[in-house]
Amino acid sequence: MASTVHPSAVLGPGTTLGEGCVVGPNVRVGSGCRIGNLVVIHADTQVGQDVRIDDHATLGKLPTRAANSATTKDQELPPLALGDACTVGTGVVIYRGAAIESRVLMADLCTVRENVAIGRGTIVGRGVTVENCCKVGRYCKLESECYITAHSELEDRVFVAPGVVTSNDNFLGRTAERFKHFKGVTVRRGGRIGAGAVLLPGITVGEDGMVAAGAVVTRDVPPRTIVLGQPARVLRPVPVEQLLENQGWTDS
Amino acid sequence: MASTVHPSAVLGPGTTLGEGCVVGPNVRVGSGCRIGNLVVIHADTQVGQDVRIDDHATLGKLPTRAANSATTKDQELPPLALGDACTVGTGVVIYRGAAIESRVLMADLCTVRENVAIGRGTIVGRGVTVENCCKVGRYCKLESECYITAHSELEDRVFVAPGVVTSNDNFLGRTAERFKHFKGVTVRRGGRIGAGAVLLPGITVGEDGMVAAGAVVTRDVPPRTIVLGQPARVLRPVPVEQLLENQGWTDS
Amino acid sequence: MASTVHPSAVLGPGTTLGEGCVVGPNVRVGSGCRIGNLVVIHADTQVGQDVRIDDHATLGKLPTRAANSATTKDQELPPLALGDACTVGTGVVIYRGAAIESRVLMADLCTVRENVAIGRGTIVGRGVTVENCCKVGRYCKLESECYITAHSELEDRVFVAPGVVTSNDNFLGRTAERFKHFKGVTVRRGGRIGAGAVLLPGITVGEDGMVAAGAVVTRDVPPRTIVLGQPARVLRPVPVEQLLENQGWTDS
Repeated sequence: MASTVHPSAVLGPGTTLGEGCVVGPNVRVGSGCRIGNLVVIHADTQVGQDVRIDDHATLGKLPTRAANSATTKDQELPPLALGDACTVGTGVVIYRGAAIESRVLMADLCTVRENVAIGRGTIVGRGVTVENCCKVGRYCKLESECYITAHSELEDRVFVAPGVVTSNDNFLGRTAERFKHFKGVTVRRGGRIGAGAVLLPGITVGEDGMVAAGAVVTRDVPPRTIVLGQPARVLRPVPVEQLLENQGWTDS
Repeated sequence: MASTVHPSAVLGPGTTLGEGCVVGPNVRVGSGCRIGNLVVIHADTQVGQDVRIDDHATLGKLPTRAANSATTKDQELPPLALGDACTVGTGVVIYRGAAIESRVLMADLCTVRENVAIGRGTIVGRGVTVENCCKVGRYCKLESECYITAHSELEDRVFVAPGVVTSNDNFLGRTAERFKHFKGVTVRRGGRIGAGAVLLPGITVGEDGMVAAGAVVTRDVPPRTIVLGQPARVLRPVPVEQLLENQGWTDS
Repeated sequence: MASTVHPSAVLGPGTTLGEGCVVGPNVRVGSGCRIGNLVVIHADTQVGQDVRIDDHATLGKLPTRAANSATTKDQELPPLALGDACTVGTGVVIYRGAAIESRVLMADLCTVRENVAIGRGTIVGRGVTVENCCKVGRYCKLESECYITAHSELEDRVFVAPGVVTSNDNFLGRTAERFKHFKGVTVRRGGRIGAGAVLLPGITVGEDGMVAAGAVVTRDVPPRTIVLGQPARVLRPVPVEQLLENQGWTDS
């Protein structure tokens, strides 16, 4: 079963393409990439070199727009740009208008929406959603099934455990007023969120701050501090040996 | 790569079909639809006009049946019916026996099971599951990654925030007795559930009632009332300006 | 649209293959199987007889490896082995190095990673992730959207409700020390976990123990005991009529 590659698309030397792929106009794929089967790469997408793209992935998708969506507007989006040595898992969906630096792993069935930037070396786990208009730093770990709401910012070296839920609308869809207040979460450099925690709209987790598993976070988390419970309260400082500055990491 | 369209299938005028699709017998698709690549539309499915269907979607799937599933029985299911101007995201799975009204958005990787009805203008978010035998009203928002258990009813204008979990078996799989008590959740008109909340089997959220983020709801929620905590307790009335009747919405 | 079947692959008598599938070298599929459309079966995969595989599924995938993943190492993996009368849902991803016994249902969009064993008759629900290096017993129910962290063990007849989150790193990605302590969860025979519960790393749920919905479990759960709350505390014994030994089940 042959793939369908638009005549204007360019695949670099040494790049292999599986069966039944669809590659649109003006796509550029660098050298040494391995593309799986039944992969769809939409128009204008720019892929670096040595990238692995697994079966059934979709790259460069144009946003769907709900008639009554509160946050998606018509817009001109730049093509999806995917850096060198990235890995794209099976069934992943990445939108046009995302900018992914090098060595990012996007695991199976995750979604990265439009107007999202992701820094070098970050892991986007299995089934994770990074909604539109988010900025994710370098060397973050967004573990399986966590949910990053629209208009969030995660700085470098942020750790988000499995099943974390974030939100951005304190008005739960009511009042015209709410459109002025949509606000995602902010996690400063080295902030960490434990498994299954819930972060309310607009929350900031300070530098190296930590949220315990299962906490429901209704107030900002101070830097280098652990919070715990429902609602989350300050427990104690983050242990010194767990601080980012004491890991010996020099690459970020 | 050509698509495979059964000779008995009919695609309306102006409808476009991507590469590598599979369209089964007796499928009817209206005019002006845009169907992506590698889409599978199973036998007898009825699609309205001006519908967008994205890559890798599967429509009209016949249920899988586990030997020891507690709720799925053999049955004759009517064909999947999808109204005008709906949007079906990438990798979505919709079953035979679902009835979807017009202008419904089903975002990427969501699943709508058999014997489900969804009303006009509702948004089914990314990764959402609507299990079998549910009724979802008009202009609801089921936000990303929420989970609607089997045998639930959501009336019009219900809002379910990201990561909400519902359940329908208080016996957690034990006793023959439990089969008499399977009960999903009921959310009355305008009810709202906050991010990451957990609703126990059989819970009813009253009209315009509201569950705060992270709450664990073990008792019914009175109308126009906010509940909060684990277990959830009454906090205060819903602010007047957030009541459904004060939104100026006339379309439902 | 023809499928692409490697000349060294063998499909048993009565097995049907949909459109646009890709079947790799040395694949063996038993008799009487029904394979859907756009299914990818990677090299060496061994499928029993009377297996149903739905559209867009991927079998026998080789692991992706993040440069900075903490738990994935290079390794030689045996081929994926899938027992008789299994069901594989739409968009499912199963890795090389998984061993699945007979009559296992893997529902739509679930993922089973490498070095996982799953026992006869178990249900892996919609969207569930079973991470690498897990052992799941017979006749378990892992309900929709639950998350089983790496290095976990679930014995026979375990029940995990929708949206349960487990974790395996108490150090949230910090200290070299943590690599010695990675530990998933252990759920003994007949243990049950309620909807949306969160289990911390290394937790053991004793035989026939039960975690209430929404609980955050920070200590081991004694056998035949219900725990509840955040943090979870002992509530009372499991009712006698719900004990595994009183169900009249003889098949496990």
